[in-house]
Amino acid sequence: MQSTSPRAPANAVATERLKLFIAYDGAPFEGWQSQARGNTVQDHIERAFKIICGIRIGLHGSGRTDTGVHALGQVAHADVPAQRLPPDKWTSALNAHLPPEIRVLRTTRTNANFHARFQACGKVYVYRIWNAAVLHPLERGRAWHLPAPLHLETLQACARLLEGTHDFAGFAARRAAKTEAASSVRTIRQILLRRRGSLITLRFEADGFLYKMVRLLTGTMVRCAQEKMDPDVIRELLAQKGKRKTSFAAPAAGLYLVRVLY
Amino acid sequence: MQSTSPRAPANAVATERLKLFIAYDGAPFEGWQSQARGNTVQDHIERAFKIICGIRIGLHGSGRTDTGVHALGQVAHADVPAQRLPPDKWTSALNAHLPPEIRVLRTTRTNANFHARFQACGKVYVYRIWNAAVLHPLERGRAWHLPAPLHLETLQACARLLEGTHDFAGFAARRAAKTEAASSVRTIRQILLRRRGSLITLRFEADGFLYKMVRLLTGTMVRCAQEKMDPDVIRELLAQKGKRKTSFAAPAAGLYLVRVLY
Repeated sequence: MQSTSPRAPANAVATERLKLFIAYDGAPFEGWQSQARGNTVQDHIERAFKIICGIRIGLHGSGRTDTGVHALGQVAHADVPAQRLPPDKWTSALNAHLPPEIRVLRTTRTNANFHARFQACGKVYVYRIWNAAVLHPLERGRAWHLPAPLHLETLQACARLLEGTHDFAGFAARRAAKTEAASSVRTIRQILLRRRGSLITLRFEADGFLYKMVRLLTGTMVRCAQEKMDPDVIRELLAQKGKRKTSFAAPAAGLYLVRVLY
Repeated sequence: MQSTSPRAPANAVATERLKLFIAYDGAPFEGWQSQARGNTVQDHIERAFKIICGIRIGLHGSGRTDTGVHALGQVAHADVPAQRLPPDKWTSALNAHLPPEIRVLRTTRTNANFHARFQACGKVYVYRIWNAAVLHPLERGRAWHLPAPLHLETLQACARLLEGTHDFAGFAARRAAKTEAASSVRTIRQILLRRRGSLITLRFEADGFLYKMVRLLTGTMVRCAQEKMDPDVIRELLAQKGKRKTSFAAPAAGLYLVRVLY
């Protein structure tokens, strides 16, 4: 049989690359990365693509987020049959087949060389802490509740120690049966500390983060701000380049992937 | 039997009045006001008092909120056995017996003349609108999702029409089998409109509000800002003093009782 299409040979399907901006409430899902049980954010979006296209479409995220971690601006790409839908229609078509805790905020057409993970040159995470005796009911599952007042100057001093280019192996968890990226050197461009009433936010911007790094940074900084640990330990953890590791990880529910930089 | 207490006669229990500041996520409850089914905010707090004191303690709120409406700063008072607990211990004792969606934020001792409802001289409500094609997943149950862009100048113009002293009977629902307060004249001191990204907030401050008034004001203002109604209708509804009523009520989930003024 002969193809009459001038666009592609009969046995090849022309594709186009989509860039998706995705937000999710992390609570009901087992993180971003696809798993056998199928209840991850990636699984849900790939199933939505399958329903729309009838074929399996692979989704490539900028990086994984753990169970319970939220996202305001996760980015992913996918190759879909060309000319199937205009980009903005993909947004509504996907959302129609997704649980309400996952929303595609925007979809754009991008060039075939764009890669959500390999081309990311930085990320922004925010960690939210509710620092008051009583946890506000609207902050449940959205912040780490620390009833005792934190020493903010210490938190700030820890932030200053961590900014810059360091080997952060001491602030990374080992991934079960996975090879970690060769280098654990990263550059934290800024850690911005803000307090508004009972809410403390820590905004981390870096060229990249190791596995569980933001939660381990936050947990260790908080430990110092509770005066249970000397900030010098942070200096040491950086100097020892992973020979010693911190074990204080802040809970997932306070963490938000805010932006991926390209 | 003779009392040895200098504080009260043997057959009377000395009491003291507590003032409670309360926050709640309105979603799981049938509003503030006590009901037979027992799943209101007042019911839950009265049950907590009963567990702590062994006797029924009546709770008097500054006013009721409807099913699904949230509160950041509801105020209530209650008379409890004197000297039973220091005020701050009441906070933690009550919270220990409350669902996590209801939190007593603070408890203070107050004088016996204080009345949470009769002495309130004003209230502040905030209404939140998410005005973008896609509802952010973390705004589910916390804002009114309006996908089409609202005409903000019209919203602002409506706010200007409503501010001041008017008979707001046209913006009040009839309470089933309840006598409404004699007068439906209220003074709206300010309606503050703010936009930050996709979030529009309307902050209403008045000496008091009629039944469902904030939701009816917001619903009608939005109807105008969608250009489905002429703002002149608002002028008419005010002039007709309840002979004509608006039927456009914004949903409960976007409404927050922020502060009670004394």
